[in-house]
Amino acid sequence: MEAKVGIIMGSDSDLKVMKEAAEMLEHFGIKYELTIVSAHRTPKRLYEYAIKAKENGFDVIIAGAGGSAHLPGMVASITSLPVIGVPIKTATLKGVDSLHSIVQMPPGIPVATMAINGAKNAGILAAKIIGVFDNEICKKVVKYKEELEMMVQTKAEKLEEVGFKEYLNTM
Amino acid sequence: MEAKVGIIMGSDSDLKVMKEAAEMLEHFGIKYELTIVSAHRTPKRLYEYAIKAKENGFDVIIAGAGGSAHLPGMVASITSLPVIGVPIKTATLKGVDSLHSIVQMPPGIPVATMAINGAKNAGILAAKIIGVFDNEICKKVVKYKEELEMMVQTKAEKLEEVGFKEYLNTM
Amino acid sequence: MEAKVGIIMGSDSDLKVMKEAAEMLEHFGIKYELTIVSAHRTPKRLYEYAIKAKENGFDVIIAGAGGSAHLPGMVASITSLPVIGVPIKTATLKGVDSLHSIVQMPPGIPVATMAINGAKNAGILAAKIIGVFDNEICKKVVKYKEELEMMVQTKAEKLEEVGFKEYLNTM
Amino acid sequence: MEAKVGIIMGSDSDLKVMKEAAEMLEHFGIKYELTIVSAHRTPKRLYEYAIKAKENGFDVIIAGAGGSAHLPGMVASITSLPVIGVPIKTATLKGVDSLHSIVQMPPGIPVATMAINGAKNAGILAAKIIGVFDNEICKKVVKYKEELEMMVQTKAEKLEEVGFKEYLNTM
Amino acid sequence: MEAKVGIIMGSDSDLKVMKEAAEMLEHFGIKYELTIVSAHRTPKRLYEYAIKAKENGFDVIIAGAGGSAHLPGMVASITSLPVIGVPIKTATLKGVDSLHSIVQMPPGIPVATMAINGAKNAGILAAKIIGVFDNEICKKVVKYKEELEMMVQTKAEKLEEVGFKEYLNTM
Amino acid sequence: MEAKVGIIMGSDSDLKVMKEAAEMLEHFGIKYELTIVSAHRTPKRLYEYAIKAKENGFDVIIAGAGGSAHLPGMVASITSLPVIGVPIKTATLKGVDSLHSIVQMPPGIPVATMAINGAKNAGILAAKIIGVFDNEICKKVVKYKEELEMMVQTKAEKLEEVGFKEYLNTM
Amino acid sequence: MEAKVGIIMGSDSDLKVMKEAAEMLEHFGIKYELTIVSAHRTPKRLYEYAIKAKENGFDVIIAGAGGSAHLPGMVASITSLPVIGVPIKTATLKGVDSLHSIVQMPPGIPVATMAINGAKNAGILAAKIIGVFDNEICKKVVKYKEELEMMVQTKAEKLEEVGFKEYLNTM
Amino acid sequence: MEAKVGIIMGSDSDLKVMKEAAEMLEHFGIKYELTIVSAHRTPKRLYEYAIKAKENGFDVIIAGAGGSAHLPGMVASITSLPVIGVPIKTATLKGVDSLHSIVQMPPGIPVATMAINGAKNAGILAAKIIGVFDNEICKKVVKYKEELEMMVQTKAEKLEEVGFKEYLNTM
Repeated sequence: MEAKVGIIMGSDSDLKVMKEAAEMLEHFGIKYELTIVSAHRTPKRLYEYAIKAKENGFDVIIAGAGGSAHLPGMVASITSLPVIGVPIKTATLKGVDSLHSIVQMPPGIPVATMAINGAKNAGILAAKIIGVFDNEICKKVVKYKEELEMMVQTKAEKLEEVGFKEYLNTM
Repeated sequence: MEAKVGIIMGSDSDLKVMKEAAEMLEHFGIKYELTIVSAHRTPKRLYEYAIKAKENGFDVIIAGAGGSAHLPGMVASITSLPVIGVPIKTATLKGVDSLHSIVQMPPGIPVATMAINGAKNAGILAAKIIGVFDNEICKKVVKYKEELEMMVQTKAEKLEEVGFKEYLNTM
Repeated sequence: MEAKVGIIMGSDSDLKVMKEAAEMLEHFGIKYELTIVSAHRTPKRLYEYAIKAKENGFDVIIAGAGGSAHLPGMVASITSLPVIGVPIKTATLKGVDSLHSIVQMPPGIPVATMAINGAKNAGILAAKIIGVFDNEICKKVVKYKEELEMMVQTKAEKLEEVGFKEYLNTM
Repeated sequence: MEAKVGIIMGSDSDLKVMKEAAEMLEHFGIKYELTIVSAHRTPKRLYEYAIKAKENGFDVIIAGAGGSAHLPGMVASITSLPVIGVPIKTATLKGVDSLHSIVQMPPGIPVATMAINGAKNAGILAAKIIGVFDNEICKKVVKYKEELEMMVQTKAEKLEEVGFKEYLNTM
Repeated sequence: MEAKVGIIMGSDSDLKVMKEAAEMLEHFGIKYELTIVSAHRTPKRLYEYAIKAKENGFDVIIAGAGGSAHLPGMVASITSLPVIGVPIKTATLKGVDSLHSIVQMPPGIPVATMAINGAKNAGILAAKIIGVFDNEICKKVVKYKEELEMMVQTKAEKLEEVGFKEYLNTM
Repeated sequence: MEAKVGIIMGSDSDLKVMKEAAEMLEHFGIKYELTIVSAHRTPKRLYEYAIKAKENGFDVIIAGAGGSAHLPGMVASITSLPVIGVPIKTATLKGVDSLHSIVQMPPGIPVATMAINGAKNAGILAAKIIGVFDNEICKKVVKYKEELEMMVQTKAEKLEEVGFKEYLNTM
Repeated sequence: MEAKVGIIMGSDSDLKVMKEAAEMLEHFGIKYELTIVSAHRTPKRLYEYAIKAKENGFDVIIAGAGGSAHLPGMVASITSLPVIGVPIKTATLKGVDSLHSIVQMPPGIPVATMAINGAKNAGILAAKIIGVFDNEICKKVVKYKEELEMMVQTKAEKLEEVGFKEYLNTM
Repeated sequence: MEAKVGIIMGSDSDLKVMKEAAEMLEHFGIKYELTIVSAHRTPKRLYEYAIKAKENGFDVIIAGAGGSAHLPGMVASITSLPVIGVPIKTATLKGVDSLHSIVQMPPGIPVATMAINGAKNAGILAAKIIGVFDNEICKKVVKYKEELEMMVQTKAEKLEEVGFKEYLNTM
C-alpha cells in the first residue's frame, strides 16, 4: 500500500512555514494530507486525529506548533506512528519556547524534533523513514542529496571562477 | 457547596514538589484530591479527568509537570475551570523547559503559571481564587499573609538585636 | 454583587498590549477599571491601590509590566486578591526579563503569570476565576471555548477543501 | 530481511546514557550494533561508517554526542537513512550546546533530535520507524505504550488509596 | 557627620551571602545597619524603611534579593539615596532571574547592580561612593586596591618560582 | 569644589545611547566631560584616563560599551572612583553579552551596572551619588522623582477619564 | 614560501559576512583562496578539502557556518593546520546555536572561535598567526593596530571639540 | 629561535583548569612560561606583560579568565601576538558569562576562543600555530591526532568485542 504522511499544525498562521513539508513530499511523490489540528483549541479533534491516524492510512505524522507547543507531543502520546515535530518561531522568544516544548519529551514518548521552522527537513525525514522500506523513495532521497551536492559544487565553482566581489554583485 | 481543588502531576517523581500544594490547602482547610495524570502516558485519562473536572465538583485545578510539560495546558484546553501550572525543575535545563512549555500558552487558553517548583504558591493562589467568593477562606489568606509578615518581623528583630555573626551561628 | 476586575500597567506604552485584557472582559460582560500604576514611579499610589483593592470592589487584579517588572508581584504582596501578571515584551531581552521578574515569586506570594504579551489570556483567566462562583460567566467561558473550537474547525475544513496553495493565496 | 539499528556515540563516556537506546531495542527484540565513532577524533571512520551504513544492513542510525555535537549531523549528511540524534548533557552548558549543535540542521539534512540525554526515546523512535513496515514491531510499540499507561494507572490508584504522605514514605 | 550604610535582604537565607557586604564595610571602618526587609512579605516595612532612609542617617542602601527580586528596585523607587542591588543565586535559574529583576530597571529609577552573589563588591562600591566626599575612606579604598594587587603579585611570584605542579600541591 | 562626571564610551556608535547620560546630568546641572575611550583600540588611553581620573577632578565615571564590554571594568580596576557601567545592546546577542561582561566582575572591583542601554539611569545614579554630599543635587533628584510621579499621575487620570480607546487614538 | 589562507563557508548566503575576512587579508597583502564547502551537503568535498589543505599550501583555514555549524570543527578534526571558526548569525537563535556548535569542541580538536559574524577578526587573527613567523606581516598588524588607535583618537578629539550634539548631527 | 608560549590566568583558582594547557605544551616539547596576571587586580602588570610579550620572546599567549573575563581581550588589545582565550566555568552562570566576555570581541581585536574550561585545546591550538612554521611541532601535532584516532579505535574494538554491559562493568 502506498505510504501517506499527515501534516498538521496548530494554526493557519503556521501554514507559511509548514507548507515546505508538503512541498518536499510532493517533490518525492509521497501522498500527504494537510490540515489544522489545535491541541489547545480543539483537544477532542486532536485525540481523534491521533487515535485514528494509523487506521486512516498514515505512516508518519508531521506536526508543527509554536510557543507552548503541545501538538507534536500529544499526538505522539496517542499514536504508535513516528511523529516529527517542527518548532515554529515565535514573536517573543524566537522559537526557543517551541523547541523546549517539543524536544524535551519524557522517556516513553519520542518526538523527532527538527530545527526551529525546519518544516522542509520534516518532509525530508518523512521521506527517509518511508525510504527504509520503499526502495523507490529511498532512491529519490539519494538523488535529492546528490542534487544538493551538485548545487553547492556549481556555486563553489562559479565563486572560485569569478571571485567574491563579482559573485556578490550577481546575487 | 464546599470548594474543592484537584491536584495532578505527570509522574510520582513530582510528588515531593507537588505535595506542598496539598499541604497549603490543608493549612487553609480546603478540600482537595491529589492523583497522577500523565499527558503523555495516559492521554485518555487526561481527557476524561479534564472533561469531568467541573462535574466532579472541582473549582480549581493545580497541575505540575516537567520538561515538555503539557499537562497544565492540555487540562486548561479541555476544562473551563481555572488551571494553575507548576513547572517542575529538570535535571538538564533546570526547569526552563518546563516553564516555557507551561507559560507560553496561545491566546484563548490561559494557564496561571507559578515559579519553577512553586507548588506552595499554587496552593495559595487556589485559596486566593476560592477566597474571592468564600469569605472564610479569604480571611484565612489575610491571616496567612499577616503571619508571614510577623515571621519576617521577628527574624529581623532578632537579627538586629544579636548581630549577623551571632545570628548565623544559631541558624 | 457584580464582579469587577482591576487592570493596571506600569506605563501607557503598555496599553496597546494590555487593552486586550479589557476587550476580553468586555466580551464576557465583566466590569473592569483600567488605569496606570507604576511600581517604580508611583510607589505610594501602588501601595494605596493594592491595599484598597478589595474594599474598592475588585475581585481580581490584572497587572502588566516590562523589564524589572515589579508591579504584579508588589500588588500581590499587599492584597489578598488573586493577581494575574502579564510580562510585557522588551526591546532588548524580548520579555525574558519581564517573565523572570513576574513568575519567580517566593513562597507565600503567588502571581498567576501569563505568556509574554499574553494580556488576552489574562482577561480570560479572570473570567474563568469569576466563573467559579458566577454561573453566567462560566457559561460564557464555555461558549467562548466552543467558538474557538468552531473557528479552528471551519478553517481546517476550508484548508482541506481548497488545499494549502489556494488557502495561502486568500489569506 | 530483519531490521537492524546502528547505535554510535562520540566517546565511551557517553555509554552510560546511550546504553538506554540499546536496552529499549532489546526490549522490542530489534537487532542493533553499538560502537564508538568520533566525528572529531576519527573523521575517516565516521565517513566510512556512514557511507556503508545502508549496505551494512542498517535501517536507522542512532547517534549521541555532547558539546559541539557534530556526529549525528555528519552521519545524516552522508547516509540516506534516517538518523536519530541524542544530545548528551555537558558539564558546563548542561547540554544546551549539544542540543543546538544537533537540532539546528540546515534545510536538506534532517536529524530526528531527542531530548537532552533522551537515549531511551531514541530506541523507541527507532522501533516506531521500523514499526511502519514491520507489523510485529508495531504491535510491540502499542503494547509498550499500554504498559506505560497501566504503570501510571497503578501508581495513581495506589496514591489515591494511601494518600501522598504514606506514598512518599514508601517511595 | 559620619557616613552610614543600610544593608537589607529579603530573607535570612540571604545572610550567608550578604554578610560579605557588612564585612567589607567593617574593613573600611564604615558604619552600617543590617536587617531583613522583604518586599513581598513586609511591603509596608519596605515602604517605611525606604521613605525614612535618608532621615535615619543612611547615605547608601545595599539590598540583596533572589528570584523575582523586587527589593532593590522598590527601595530605589522610594528613596533618593543611591541603591546597590545584589542578585542572589537561586536553586533553579542560578540567579539569572534575580539579575534580570534587579538590573533591568526602567528609565528614572537606577539600581547599581552587582554580580550574582556579589555582596562583597556591594560593600566596596558603597565605600567608593562614600570615598567621593570622605577622603579617609577614599584612601582606604586606594590601599585596599593596592593590597589586592600585592596579593596577586605575591602569588604570581610564588607560582613562577615553584612551578604549577608544586603550587597546586600546596594549595 | 563642584562635582564632575566623566562619560566615556568604546565607540562613537554608542553615542546615540550614551548621550542620555549627558542629558540627564545637564538636567541636574552637573558638570561632565564626554569622550571616546576604547578599551580594545586605545588601551593606553584607557589606562591614562583612569589613572588620572581623580586628579582631573572627576567624582564618578560613567562608561558604556557593547559585546565583550571591558571598558567599565577596566576603568574600575584602575581608579578608586565609583564606576557606572552601561551595557550597550548588540546586533546579535541583544546586549546579553555586554551585560555579562560588565556585571559579572570579580570580588574587589565593583561596577555599578545599569540596564541594557540604560544610559539615562547612569546619569541619574551619578546624581544620586553626588547628592549624598551635595544637598542641592539631592533636592533636584527628589524633585525629579516627584515630577516622574506627577507625570504618571496625570497620564493615569487622563486614561481613567477618556477610556483606553480614546487614549490610544490620541497617543 | 609565501603564506596562504583558505576561506570557506557553508553556503553562499554566508558570503556577505565572510567577505570581510578576505578584505582584511587583502589589506595585509596575504594570499587567500575563498570557496564554498558545505559540511552537510558536500561531506566528501569537505573531507578532501581538509585532508589536502596543507599539501595545497594553506597555512591557516578560516571557516564560517551557521546553525548546526559543523564546518569549522570537522575541518579541524581532519587537518593539522590551525582553524578559525566564524559563527554566522541565524534568523531564529541569532547565532547562539552557531556559537555553541563551533566553540564547544571536545579536548583534542580546537577551533579558534570568533564573535558571531566576526569574519573581519578571523582575517586579522590569521594575519597575527602568520605574523608569528613572517616579520613583514607582523609589522603590518602593528601598523593596523596603530591606525585603529589613531582613528579612535581622532574621533575622540572631534567629539571633545564639537560636543556630542554637533557630533551626532554630522554622523 | 625556539618558540615560546605565555600562559596567564586571572587567579590561582583558575590553575587547576589552566594547567592542562601547560601539560599539552610539555607533551609537544614547547617552551612556556606560566604566571598570574589579573586584568582587574593588577591592570598595570597586565599592560606591561602584554606590551613586552613579543620582546620577551613569546609567540603565542594563552589567557584564561572567568566571569567578566577581560584578561584575554585586554592582552589582545595591546600585543600583536595571537591570543588564545579560555573561558573559565563560573559558579553561577556556568561560564556563559566568561564565554560572552571573551568571544564577543569588537572588529579589530580577535581572541581565539576555546570551549568553556577548554585549556587543553588552548595548548593544542598553540602547537598548531607554532606548527605552521616549525615542522617538528607540526609532525607532533599530526602524531597526536593519530594517537587520538587510535585510542578511539581501540576503545571501539573493545566495546564491539565485549558488548556494552561488560564494557561498562570494566570502566
